Amino acid sequence: MTTALPVAISMGDPAGIGPEIIARLFRGRPEWSSRCVVVGDLDVMRRATAIFDGMQPVAVLDDWSDAVCVPPGALPVLPRVRLRMPAPLGQVSAQAGLAAAQAIEQGAQAALERRVSALVTAPIHKAALHAAGIGYPGHTEYLQALAAAHLGRPVSAVPVRMMLSSPELSTVLVSIHVSLRAAIEAVTTGNVLQTIRIADRHFRQVMGLQRCRVAVAGLNPHAGEGGLFGDEETLVISPAIEQARAEGIDVSGPWPPDTVFMKAREGFCDVVVAMYHDQGLIPVKYLGLAHGVNTTLGLPFLRTSPDHGTAFDLAGTGRADPSSLEAAVRAALPQPTP
Amino acid sequence: MTTALPVAISMGDPAGIGPEIIARLFRGRPEWSSRCVVVGDLDVMRRATAIFDGMQPVAVLDDWSDAVCVPPGALPVLPRVRLRMPAPLGQVSAQAGLAAAQAIEQGAQAALERRVSALVTAPIHKAALHAAGIGYPGHTEYLQALAAAHLGRPVSAVPVRMMLSSPELSTVLVSIHVSLRAAIEAVTTGNVLQTIRIADRHFRQVMGLQRCRVAVAGLNPHAGEGGLFGDEETLVISPAIEQARAEGIDVSGPWPPDTVFMKAREGFCDVVVAMYHDQGLIPVKYLGLAHGVNTTLGLPFLRTSPDHGTAFDLAGTGRADPSSLEAAVRAALPQPTP
Repeated sequence: MTTALPVAISMGDPAGIGPEIIARLFRGRPEWSSRCVVVGDLDVMRRATAIFDGMQPVAVLDDWSDAVCVPPGALPVLPRVRLRMPAPLGQVSAQAGLAAAQAIEQGAQAALERRVSALVTAPIHKAALHAAGIGYPGHTEYLQALAAAHLGRPVSAVPVRMMLSSPELSTVLVSIHVSLRAAIEAVTTGNVLQTIRIADRHFRQVMGLQRCRVAVAGLNPHAGEGGLFGDEETLVISPAIEQARAEGIDVSGPWPPDTVFMKAREGFCDVVVAMYHDQGLIPVKYLGLAHGVNTTLGLPFLRTSPDHGTAFDLAGTGRADPSSLEAAVRAALPQPTP
Repeated sequence: MTTALPVAISMGDPAGIGPEIIARLFRGRPEWSSRCVVVGDLDVMRRATAIFDGMQPVAVLDDWSDAVCVPPGALPVLPRVRLRMPAPLGQVSAQAGLAAAQAIEQGAQAALERRVSALVTAPIHKAALHAAGIGYPGHTEYLQALAAAHLGRPVSAVPVRMMLSSPELSTVLVSIHVSLRAAIEAVTTGNVLQTIRIADRHFRQVMGLQRCRVAVAGLNPHAGEGGLFGDEETLVISPAIEQARAEGIDVSGPWPPDTVFMKAREGFCDVVVAMYHDQGLIPVKYLGLAHGVNTTLGLPFLRTSPDHGTAFDLAGTGRADPSSLEAAVRAALPQPTP
């Protein structure tokens, strides 16, 4: 640890499992109470602690810097968001969506101002955000816009990429939520090169690796088998790899997609650049979702999140598994301020 | 076991690792010597036994039915193929390609005539086949043509599909060796329906399952998320699933590709129908290649093969791993005659 700054955790949608997995997190990891700040609504977080047996103190903070004084196991809450009335569990509502968005904005501003070292976001609900009139489909686009505004740049000048990690494999995706047809169109030399650069920068500058070995997957079976099954490897992907190599990046490929993730799992590289959503997410999720971490690369701060949604059907039952949130906080915690 | 018929094993390319992993197989599995027949060139197979320390007897058979008399650990060879001169290890040659093709043809004919219960094929080399003037790019197309000729039907009337299995997961592919763009075009209601039918028939009629739970993956991220990221799920895949269900097949989907394989691994279904090569092969290969088995579905007999190539660089060293071949023979052995 080269910084004493805490990690911000945005509470997520008050109607989902976010608040309760956050509360549960500090019961299992009491040593993290003094290293994190949960930003959200105090009543929502108090309600979350009451789901579980046994008293859990709530430490009400005045500022991000107050976390250090929080006793082990207590829930450290910075109440910068206020719901006008209780949000019913498991229901989409505009006020819950708005509160979730405000918590994200508070956390992001703190990260942009270097008052916290990183932001971990609990799950939000797309429909609730939409009902609240928030014009972003998810965290990534929202954080990108906040970062661009803070930096005084257009959004296009803050390119971001999604990385999904299991304990064994990290993949960064060239594109995410578009059809497979559109994803193929998004495999351009510019996009692949940008993805390689962003991945390399993250591992070296944010994660502190001396050297990051980037492996790039092909788009087609057998990486095109010399042009027999598609030419994107030759025409589009290889030129991006060559350019990145010319910039000093330790990058290889394009590798046959069906084995590169298996090889990465065995230590062949530090990160795989995947050409589309499912190419990268099928292997990361294959061994289970419990320890998956989603990281947004390209922002001026480290942002991680658990690899699951609000699970409205489980909200309030106390049965939601905090493992993925714990993995997300662990991934955020040991980092120095970027 | 409901049949005493042996399993045929074609020797593969004489210059590759096929012969030696076959020889090694019976050292590790001596009880299989009386249940298998290796079809190929006698000198090639004798050379393979000499790679390893310790004498291994070679039982020279006159007919497929002679296997029962072979002593444990011996290599049971039916020498129906004859090389004119020794094939140098690790080199592409026309005569090696021709011999490999003849062994396949002998094994396939025996399977078509019900003289063996199944065919296991050791790896062949595409360039050697080509040099020998064999007009098929690989086993699958060759076997399909032989079966069609035997049945007196056009090749198109013997639709086949590739299934790849690990000990945890089986996936059947709608298309294999085509570009990703072409693979998307191959996702038609007809092709998906045919794949579902072939998968279901294999597990019930060939493998003897009472009931086969088929899960169908979507094509797009999140299976299209209700049309937001592509409409193939709605327009193409769902109609195929509905039709298959109307035919009495136990089939579900289309499921989000990034989690259906993880769920299949946990027992959600017996087989996943994958929309393209890498969607299905990335998860099957993720945990390693050693126990992967390739099965051709749709032929009038069971055909399996190891999930690797000729590995010319390893040929003759005795270091090639016979695990995948062993898994392929095990997958072929316990089946009754289809």
